[in-house]
Amino acid sequence: MGLLSKPIKSLNDLFVHTLQDVYYTEQKITKALPKMAAKVSDQQLQSAFLTHLAETEQHIARVEEVFRMHGEQPKAVTCPAIDGIVTEAEEIMKDATDPEVLDAAALAAAQAVEHYEITRYGTLVAWAKELGRNDCASVLQQNLDEEKVTDLKLTQIAEARINRIAV
Amino acid sequence: MGLLSKPIKSLNDLFVHTLQDVYYTEQKITKALPKMAAKVSDQQLQSAFLTHLAETEQHIARVEEVFRMHGEQPKAVTCPAIDGIVTEAEEIMKDATDPEVLDAAALAAAQAVEHYEITRYGTLVAWAKELGRNDCASVLQQNLDEEKVTDLKLTQIAEARINRIAV
Repeated sequence: MGLLSKPIKSLNDLFVHTLQDVYYTEQKITKALPKMAAKVSDQQLQSAFLTHLAETEQHIARVEEVFRMHGEQPKAVTCPAIDGIVTEAEEIMKDATDPEVLDAAALAAAQAVEHYEITRYGTLVAWAKELGRNDCASVLQQNLDEEKVTDLKLTQIAEARINRIAV
Repeated sequence: MGLLSKPIKSLNDLFVHTLQDVYYTEQKITKALPKMAAKVSDQQLQSAFLTHLAETEQHIARVEEVFRMHGEQPKAVTCPAIDGIVTEAEEIMKDATDPEVLDAAALAAAQAVEHYEITRYGTLVAWAKELGRNDCASVLQQNLDEEKVTDLKLTQIAEARINRIAV
C-alpha cells in the first residue's frame, strides 16, 4: 500500500488509496518484467514472465476502468513495499552469476510480487463489496484470479526444478 | 528478501540469505503485532493478532533450529519489503481515526504480512528440497502451514465484516 497522499477518513478513502497503490504496483511490474525475462535461462520461466507482462497491461486497463466506474481519476501513489520487493530482486539478479541460481532468484522474486498483488486485490475485492460496489469487485476479481493462476504456474516451474534434480 | 550481505554464488547461498531474511521478518513482526493489537477495536481481530504473536515467537525458534541444522549461525539481514509493508501499516493506522476504518486497514496490513511470509517460506521449502535437506524443509513447512491458517482466519474476519454490513 502506498504512503499517504491524503487523509484516510472512510473505507472509501482506504479503497481509493489502495487502488492507487495497485496502479503504481502494476506499472512498476511492467518495467521490471522485461528485464527479468531477458536475464533468465529457463525457457518456461521466460515464457511465464512474458505472458504475465501482457496480462499486466490488461490489469492496468482494468484498474483504470475501476477508477472511472468509481468516479475517480486514475492516479498512482508510491508504494514502498513493491519498491522493496523489486529492489531486492534486482540486487540478487545482478549478483547471481550462475544461471541456475539466477533463475531460482528470479522465480522467487516473481512469486513475492504475485503474493503482494494477490493480497492487495483480495483486500480491494472485499472492500468493494463492503462499499456496495459489486461491479468494481467483479472487475478486480478478474485481476485477482489471473495473479493466482500466475503464482500457481510459477509454483509448478519451481516444483519441476526439484523433480529434475531429484531424478 | 534482504539486501545482500555477501555474494550469492550458489543455491545454498540463496537459501541461507533468504533464511536470514525471514529471521529479520519474524522479529519485525513480533514488534509490530502488539502495537496493532492494542489499536484495533474488533475483538476477533485483536485475538487473531495476539494468537499470531505467540505463533511468531515459535516461528523464530524454528528458523533458529533450521540455521543450526544447516550449520549456520542465526543472523538477520535487513529486508526492505517487510520494512515497507510495516511502515505503510503504521502510517495508515496512525491516520485512520474511525475505528471501523482502522480495523479494516490493520486487517489488510496483516494479510500483506502473511502473504509475504507465505511466499518466502514456500520458496525456502522448495529450495531446502532442491538442496536435499528434507529435514529443514519439514521444519519450514510447519511455519508455512501456520501462516496460511492465519491468513485464512483473517480472510474469514474480512468476510464477516462484509456479511455484517450486507445484513
